[in-house]
Amino acid sequence: MNDSKSVKNLIGENDLVLVYLNEKRQFLVQITPHLKLSSDFGELILGDVIGKPYGYIGKTHLGREFYCLKPSTADLMMKVKRTTTIVYPKDTGYLLLETAIGPGSKVIEVGTGSGALTLVLAKFVAPDGMVYTYDRREEFIENAKKNIERAGYINNVEFFCHDVAEQEFLQKGVDAIFIDVPEPWTIIPKAAKVLKGGHHMVSWSPNVEQVKSTVDALQNNGFIRIKVSEIVEREMLVRQQGVRPRERGVTHTAYLVTSQKILGSGFEI
Amino acid sequence: MNDSKSVKNLIGENDLVLVYLNEKRQFLVQITPHLKLSSDFGELILGDVIGKPYGYIGKTHLGREFYCLKPSTADLMMKVKRTTTIVYPKDTGYLLLETAIGPGSKVIEVGTGSGALTLVLAKFVAPDGMVYTYDRREEFIENAKKNIERAGYINNVEFFCHDVAEQEFLQKGVDAIFIDVPEPWTIIPKAAKVLKGGHHMVSWSPNVEQVKSTVDALQNNGFIRIKVSEIVEREMLVRQQGVRPRERGVTHTAYLVTSQKILGSGFEI
Amino acid sequence: MNDSKSVKNLIGENDLVLVYLNEKRQFLVQITPHLKLSSDFGELILGDVIGKPYGYIGKTHLGREFYCLKPSTADLMMKVKRTTTIVYPKDTGYLLLETAIGPGSKVIEVGTGSGALTLVLAKFVAPDGMVYTYDRREEFIENAKKNIERAGYINNVEFFCHDVAEQEFLQKGVDAIFIDVPEPWTIIPKAAKVLKGGHHMVSWSPNVEQVKSTVDALQNNGFIRIKVSEIVEREMLVRQQGVRPRERGVTHTAYLVTSQKILGSGFEI
Amino acid sequence: MNDSKSVKNLIGENDLVLVYLNEKRQFLVQITPHLKLSSDFGELILGDVIGKPYGYIGKTHLGREFYCLKPSTADLMMKVKRTTTIVYPKDTGYLLLETAIGPGSKVIEVGTGSGALTLVLAKFVAPDGMVYTYDRREEFIENAKKNIERAGYINNVEFFCHDVAEQEFLQKGVDAIFIDVPEPWTIIPKAAKVLKGGHHMVSWSPNVEQVKSTVDALQNNGFIRIKVSEIVEREMLVRQQGVRPRERGVTHTAYLVTSQKILGSGFEI
Repeated sequence: MNDSKSVKNLIGENDLVLVYLNEKRQFLVQITPHLKLSSDFGELILGDVIGKPYGYIGKTHLGREFYCLKPSTADLMMKVKRTTTIVYPKDTGYLLLETAIGPGSKVIEVGTGSGALTLVLAKFVAPDGMVYTYDRREEFIENAKKNIERAGYINNVEFFCHDVAEQEFLQKGVDAIFIDVPEPWTIIPKAAKVLKGGHHMVSWSPNVEQVKSTVDALQNNGFIRIKVSEIVEREMLVRQQGVRPRERGVTHTAYLVTSQKILGSGFEI
Repeated sequence: MNDSKSVKNLIGENDLVLVYLNEKRQFLVQITPHLKLSSDFGELILGDVIGKPYGYIGKTHLGREFYCLKPSTADLMMKVKRTTTIVYPKDTGYLLLETAIGPGSKVIEVGTGSGALTLVLAKFVAPDGMVYTYDRREEFIENAKKNIERAGYINNVEFFCHDVAEQEFLQKGVDAIFIDVPEPWTIIPKAAKVLKGGHHMVSWSPNVEQVKSTVDALQNNGFIRIKVSEIVEREMLVRQQGVRPRERGVTHTAYLVTSQKILGSGFEI
Repeated sequence: MNDSKSVKNLIGENDLVLVYLNEKRQFLVQITPHLKLSSDFGELILGDVIGKPYGYIGKTHLGREFYCLKPSTADLMMKVKRTTTIVYPKDTGYLLLETAIGPGSKVIEVGTGSGALTLVLAKFVAPDGMVYTYDRREEFIENAKKNIERAGYINNVEFFCHDVAEQEFLQKGVDAIFIDVPEPWTIIPKAAKVLKGGHHMVSWSPNVEQVKSTVDALQNNGFIRIKVSEIVEREMLVRQQGVRPRERGVTHTAYLVTSQKILGSGFEI
Repeated sequence: MNDSKSVKNLIGENDLVLVYLNEKRQFLVQITPHLKLSSDFGELILGDVIGKPYGYIGKTHLGREFYCLKPSTADLMMKVKRTTTIVYPKDTGYLLLETAIGPGSKVIEVGTGSGALTLVLAKFVAPDGMVYTYDRREEFIENAKKNIERAGYINNVEFFCHDVAEQEFLQKGVDAIFIDVPEPWTIIPKAAKVLKGGHHMVSWSPNVEQVKSTVDALQNNGFIRIKVSEIVEREMLVRQQGVRPRERGVTHTAYLVTSQKILGSGFEI
């Protein structure tokens, strides 16, 4: 059991902190000794929060309070430097639980993109698991690498700048495969060969036609228990003047496809 | 990198297998040497699948195929023996990512219930983290313990048969607190004392009034960045005859509340 | 301005009354002098309510109260004798307002079905307008005719037992066309010829593929401002113990397509 | 039956035309002899469309096509000059069908606002029915009057600049009452006295608390069959590159309350 002495909750050098002034002014910041941040609420001397606990309340030079919060996994995703559209936390949480992965798992991701999903997978297969992530665009991998390094999960990721349409996967017997490319059906036959039997292949796409082609490819490559879902997040505003859903917002991100591989001709693992 | 020799994908004694005949006939089974299962599709000799790989296709004595699949985390949740309503995977995935927890975290759960959430938390704080779960009903804890033991995460859970309305929490400085009781607002002041500053308190409730009282209590106990959301899962049926959303289904489970603690009078951690 | 003398609110012979005992026991009844109804709440002597006002509270012979309510247009739709799936009030209300029709309009409906939509259209084009409704199945028309006669709108409907795939429409210059058949795209070229320029063609279908083919046909036949929507009704339960959305329910009925015709080669009206 | 000679589809002086250039450039215009309209697509000489049929394709002086379309009822609502938030067509269509009103009905509306609902009610009770609309703000009534006059339904509306919180309704025995004020529960006792027995009272509000107070007041004033719903419109984009729901949009307008009056102490009509 914990006791108060062993609780480590102090902000250290290079830690990620969610600096929160209000809903419209929140920043994910990596703390360094002399860091300052400027906002219209005044200057924040962030170097000074080293050694303070998370939850600390600081003040800008104009006297506005700011809060040093622990970033959630969703914050880490949403605040990556983006070179692409990212998969949303609402969808990621669902997909994560629809597979069997956890600490120690080996996972392939196709379509590194900005690395938002990569870092979540890396976090949840740590300390001993590994994410093998593929993208054919060198500049995307460079950016994703920085995003994941900053989040602290670089040791659980291997990057491959391969076009999987042209080359084979370099792993065999992985616990799950996550596909985030515009044409998942072109990847599925190859991916099926390196996924463990009985395990999970997941993908997501914005359009109905993509989902249909993906489902076809899954059915033709020995996958069963294929399910397609949409996850809609609906925020409720809880205020003194009354409770109601938010009036405008995101109404669609992607259709999510989950499936499991069965063994048969051509699949021995 | 993996090579095919090191891939371990064989079903062993006591492993959990999702035995799948079709959408309406799927069972989460712990495999033992002489296990048989009877269904209207015939008898399944499940002892025989020991040593076979996941993804294996067996046959009932009536010649119907069955598939030995790896259960997803969502399967483990949905197939616990239930003494209570459980939180759904769609909501759990969202809540998990809205906190900072991962391998190594210390988490308090209030309201063990059937242990569906407990096992997910245990899985994702493993191998070094710990879930401290509280329930005042002995029989619920007994059932939950069995569910979590079967799922293989018992080493990452400590159970407390306490009424937290009457006793203090026995941990200090935890990374997140998950509250699943009908009146979360009665727990929040105590819970606030043992949560690390800057970290996450989450709860969920079916009714608007509960959410309102919870938000009030959070605001009065030093929490900020309070957000209330609903997660709606909408299944799409992708079939030869056409693609469309499922015509009937679940339309509400719970409103989800997330928040973060700031330090101040009375909260030193 | 009304005065109380001129208010006519008495139930007459042949009037339709919604007899309401509770949520699960409500019946749309045409009142006749000696009518009795039996339910597990006792016998209702409905002949006796002639001359009573709407809103009247009667009692069964077991002493349970029943209420004589005015049926809404939605009640008239939902309580037709059904030979087919019907279009829901939530969808009908939307479609009605997405056209320009009102008292005096001439409207074509293709696919009479059970006549649920027919009676709504007839009601809202009365007293001088007309609905021309087509179905190739004699028995459907017979049933729909009875449904509309009972609802009191028979004078505003003309029925045609034609297969519009094989025969031309017998009207020209109608104000709107409502298409409720499995393959709307087969009807659209013919329908386009008899719809007034600038006016509205609407259809609805459960599947995405149907909607896509319909939109294609509209684009190829001189229609613009094509819009596809889904209308989701979400019931809120407002009870002493709390307010929340209903937990299970209808999650999909149909995609609704609206469009307007422009003039051009081949369309002179 | 119609024949082509009797079809009247020509645009006349003072007619309302929806002038459509593209999705972002559409205008509801009342046509007058020398009317010109300027847009970034060029000048439109709208006086020239008098005598042309609806569906006519004109050209701007820059050669861009514009279409002269028949405005739908929803267009008439959405394009009123607004002094207030208006009720949306998706909600209006639902509410209209949840009452019994049609040609010839007498209806009270409380909260004229911009007159968007007033004109829909007026349209569907025409030619012999009447809408009695109340607002305590003179300037709102003046604006609404112009909106309804332009739409052509002024003969079916009587306006009352009364504060119904302080004065009685001037009608008795109406077929339905529509309440669009922030505190419907303050109006309900008075409104109940002038509504026909068995008939419909409807209201709508953005917040849960408002709905709860409204439902309480309805229960305390002899109303049954109280139902609360939300209507969510979800647009699907059907394009060459794929079909998907629109990515951002309206996520909440109002909760809709419908109910029916029963007779009893104090209510004789």
